Amino acid sequence: MPRQIIDLTHSQNVSLQSIGVDEVTLEDSFWEPRREINRISTIPSQIKQCEDTHRVDNLRRVLGNGEVKFEGIYFNDSDVYKVMEAISWSLATHPDAELDSKMDELIEVVASAQQPDGYLNSYFMFEREKERFTNLKDMHELYCAGHLIQAAVAHHRATGKSTFLEVAKRLSDCLYVNFGPDGRPGACGHPEAEMALVELARETGDERYLVLAKCMIDARGMNPPILGGAEYHQDHQHISRRDTITGHAVRDLYLMCGGTDVVLENGDENYLTGLNAIWDNFTSRRIYVNGGAGARHEGEAFGVDYELPNSRAYNETCAAIASVMWQYRMLHLTGEAKYASLMEHTLYNAVLPGLSLNGMEYFYENPLEDNGTHRRQAWFGCACCPPNVARLMAQLPGYFASTNGNSIYLHLYAASEMKLKLDIGVITLKLRTEYPFNGSVQIDVEGADAPFDLYLRVPHWVKEGKAAHNGNVLACIPDEYVAISAVQSGDKITLEFPFQVELLASHSRVVSNRNQVAIQYGPLIYCIEQADLEGGDIRDVVLNSDTDFKLKAQSSLPGNIPILEGMALICTPSPESSLYHSIVQKESLSVITKMITAVPYYVWANREPGPMRVWIPME
Amino acid sequence: MPRQIIDLTHSQNVSLQSIGVDEVTLEDSFWEPRREINRISTIPSQIKQCEDTHRVDNLRRVLGNGEVKFEGIYFNDSDVYKVMEAISWSLATHPDAELDSKMDELIEVVASAQQPDGYLNSYFMFEREKERFTNLKDMHELYCAGHLIQAAVAHHRATGKSTFLEVAKRLSDCLYVNFGPDGRPGACGHPEAEMALVELARETGDERYLVLAKCMIDARGMNPPILGGAEYHQDHQHISRRDTITGHAVRDLYLMCGGTDVVLENGDENYLTGLNAIWDNFTSRRIYVNGGAGARHEGEAFGVDYELPNSRAYNETCAAIASVMWQYRMLHLTGEAKYASLMEHTLYNAVLPGLSLNGMEYFYENPLEDNGTHRRQAWFGCACCPPNVARLMAQLPGYFASTNGNSIYLHLYAASEMKLKLDIGVITLKLRTEYPFNGSVQIDVEGADAPFDLYLRVPHWVKEGKAAHNGNVLACIPDEYVAISAVQSGDKITLEFPFQVELLASHSRVVSNRNQVAIQYGPLIYCIEQADLEGGDIRDVVLNSDTDFKLKAQSSLPGNIPILEGMALICTPSPESSLYHSIVQKESLSVITKMITAVPYYVWANREPGPMRVWIPME
Repeated sequence: MPRQIIDLTHSQNVSLQSIGVDEVTLEDSFWEPRREINRISTIPSQIKQCEDTHRVDNLRRVLGNGEVKFEGIYFNDSDVYKVMEAISWSLATHPDAELDSKMDELIEVVASAQQPDGYLNSYFMFEREKERFTNLKDMHELYCAGHLIQAAVAHHRATGKSTFLEVAKRLSDCLYVNFGPDGRPGACGHPEAEMALVELARETGDERYLVLAKCMIDARGMNPPILGGAEYHQDHQHISRRDTITGHAVRDLYLMCGGTDVVLENGDENYLTGLNAIWDNFTSRRIYVNGGAGARHEGEAFGVDYELPNSRAYNETCAAIASVMWQYRMLHLTGEAKYASLMEHTLYNAVLPGLSLNGMEYFYENPLEDNGTHRRQAWFGCACCPPNVARLMAQLPGYFASTNGNSIYLHLYAASEMKLKLDIGVITLKLRTEYPFNGSVQIDVEGADAPFDLYLRVPHWVKEGKAAHNGNVLACIPDEYVAISAVQSGDKITLEFPFQVELLASHSRVVSNRNQVAIQYGPLIYCIEQADLEGGDIRDVVLNSDTDFKLKAQSSLPGNIPILEGMALICTPSPESSLYHSIVQKESLSVITKMITAVPYYVWANREPGPMRVWIPME
Repeated sequence: MPRQIIDLTHSQNVSLQSIGVDEVTLEDSFWEPRREINRISTIPSQIKQCEDTHRVDNLRRVLGNGEVKFEGIYFNDSDVYKVMEAISWSLATHPDAELDSKMDELIEVVASAQQPDGYLNSYFMFEREKERFTNLKDMHELYCAGHLIQAAVAHHRATGKSTFLEVAKRLSDCLYVNFGPDGRPGACGHPEAEMALVELARETGDERYLVLAKCMIDARGMNPPILGGAEYHQDHQHISRRDTITGHAVRDLYLMCGGTDVVLENGDENYLTGLNAIWDNFTSRRIYVNGGAGARHEGEAFGVDYELPNSRAYNETCAAIASVMWQYRMLHLTGEAKYASLMEHTLYNAVLPGLSLNGMEYFYENPLEDNGTHRRQAWFGCACCPPNVARLMAQLPGYFASTNGNSIYLHLYAASEMKLKLDIGVITLKLRTEYPFNGSVQIDVEGADAPFDLYLRVPHWVKEGKAAHNGNVLACIPDEYVAISAVQSGDKITLEFPFQVELLASHSRVVSNRNQVAIQYGPLIYCIEQADLEGGDIRDVVLNSDTDFKLKAQSSLPGNIPILEGMALICTPSPESSLYHSIVQKESLSVITKMITAVPYYVWANREPGPMRVWIPME
């Protein structure tokens, strides 16, 4: 039974086929310990949070005939569904009787809340029953439905049980009646249901859900608008006519996922034109150096082109996850490595910072500069991010590879064993590597009854990378797949992606990064933290042409995470320095030279509170 | 009858006495035409807006016995009161039968809405009567009361009529019963009532209102907190223990006004310690180069130290006005020129940009960089700024000078005639000047029966300024008053403040301005607008050491406003330029040299929509 994150088996317009999350077994010391924490700590704690905060009780209201009032925010059902999706993906790779039975219990609660017509939303029951579908713009009704559907599909794929899927189908049938071709134009102010419905079509073979997803996408940008017409709600233009990523970051990126899912099914050229233009705008003008998305706190939104403030970067963890999900879809649509490169970059540098090293605390916002007050929290009133991280960690192995007939595509690297199903049978790949801290990868091949082709992604930052097939060296072009043909059992394949420190500068129109650099080493973006700088203030660190960062393999960080060290200037302003001064009166700075330490951005804020910055001034 | 903005006649702790707004008659071509527009266009249009948007109708509800529902935002009463205050100050300098009778009509409406116990708020009547004073944190109840009181005091001072003042007294008596020494601790989530109550105490001689103002200030920062304890509401600490300007910018600056008003009355040293520390933090770490206040859209709030983003600067027009009001109070408390300098700087560069040249459109937010989409509007749903500008313009002459026994202090300069009351009698000063476009001022003295002392403020940006008294030259120290003693009728006094272009840089910790400069010429901050740059994008303008801005007296701007011209580089990135690149691969820029134009920041966005920036990169 395939357990793909998205199941493209019968999709019309794919370049790559997704693999099951259970086809890759991670054995590394980077991801797998996090996945174990996810399974044994994070997911159970999130179930408890959903219980303690009455999120599950809201769904139980029907049992008490509505005498218990709804508590919390109107979209809180979605958190329960996302935790259920995380449980499902976890069960797909790690059967667990306790989680399995908890899941069945939760499904029973959800199913009990379903109305005779299939409708299901614990906020719009009893006293608010009459308000159903009256404010699609603001009330996240279809968004909650989308998360229910995604969880149900995941549960069906992971366990083969259809109890939850039946609930999702009945709910979707209700949505189809209301907002399908014979209903009225309808879409949610918070996209999400679109991609969920396409997945439900894939899982059930019922084309109506795909049609409904397309109806919801096409309902945007109408004249007059049905959602108010604002960019915030992605209602300013139809997706096919758009050329910027805009409005609420998570919403727009979820809409991109749904749009791409539709194209994967029907190959719509107009949709694709919009998606490509929006992707270009996203990656060439509105994305943070770490892959983060969303420049503005107000509206949790994208800014205009080149608007990328650092300390007030919003960069919601959910937006980074949404970007990973979009890249994954574009990757399967096109087979182009650039999507996998951005997916990897975003995972390490934008998703992972959202999770503490102990797996129990989360960032909602991810600034690239902070004064030390921004800290991860165990939960949030609006708790979208924690279960989003949990479901991603649970499904993570599925992102590592894809197939195409008798070809294997490796997108991500980690010590692992992969058993990938090709037309010629199941191939076993054994990867040994210390990635992401070292760019050497050894791959042993087993189980191939016939030759197959292996495509290995060369990350975008690689210079002078080398691949070798049984000793035959192949050149590597950055941000492409190196093709190794006629691979057979017993073959030895090696990759050498030399890691080096790279200082990155920004496009001249990014005013917030002007004359500043960011540090990249291999796939990781680094930052400096006050915890590592005694006798100086990290706000006063200035790099110059003498600065030469070197890897220091031993560090005092948890898990002995490699750090970088280099000499820099500490230019301390006098306490009397005025805020503004004539340029003819130079600012009085006391300058010393000092060894500074840079740590991977994803580990920041795991020690005592203190300032952090990614972009560092350069003389 | 004195018509001071704040009446310090009987205050215990003053260095300077305020003058009446009718003691200065502006005759210049900069302010007075704006004041005329304010009187004949702005104020009448705002009355109409208040009528059209049911703001006045809300207060008329009592006449219909509550059958008409409240419309709009819960603090909309305050806009009516602010327009009434603007009318009052306008009547103080320009008697106008129509406005006078409109004012009487509005007072009747307001008085009719007053309850038997003195309570007055059109939102908390009828269906919400039971909710009175139940949510002081959020509902702006005392804020609305404060604006009523300020308007009533202004009306009494301007016209001598006491109808409105009696309403204010009854309302304040009601507040005193509830939140005075024998009531419960109470304060508003939006400060404003504090300064209003001190003014009411001054106007009526009733000390209870001063006591009540102090109770409201002292209710903040209690343990447990009465307003939630957040910085946003200025409830995190008592004013005397604070050392940062923080939270919602308008709220904190209004609180500073109220705190300073209390100190003007009672000399409280603890309050003063807090006020001084907060002022130092404001001016040395959190103020924009134009005097603007409020770095964050979210919470309309101050950021942390040195957080001063340009394109997303909030800089609410009301916050700039609040700062002017605070500086005016600190000036009279201390007699120190630095407060008058900041007051002038803020008026020209932070208040005035909030108003279109035609006086009919307003900015709520005032960014220092924009892509051309931010435009002034005729009104707002939350319409605090427009009537705030109108009342300030109406009372403006009062800010120009102060007295102290037989001394006159001139703070601001404009062509004008001043008739200032000293102990020796009324002195007439006639000022001729083209300020703010030229720094020469000639002052003729008339009507002095005995010698008096004249203190003339030397702006902070003046270099090699000169004052002369009947030809005797006196040196000028920037940001101090030059003292001219024994001035008599017939004396000729001249000031020469040489205007020159100054490029300003920021403190090294202001990352958003790093390697950028702002242009100042005389008292004005300049900006560049796309409208003046054909064949280039203002985002690509870079200044270098060759850039030498010169004044060009003739311009195509409305009113022939002087502009600056200078050579700069236009460094245009290639359309293919990536968002991030290794510093070893230099960004491809096509560089040309071009004459660029800078215009005063206050005139921006008065031509076609287009990008603007104040801070310009410098090589």
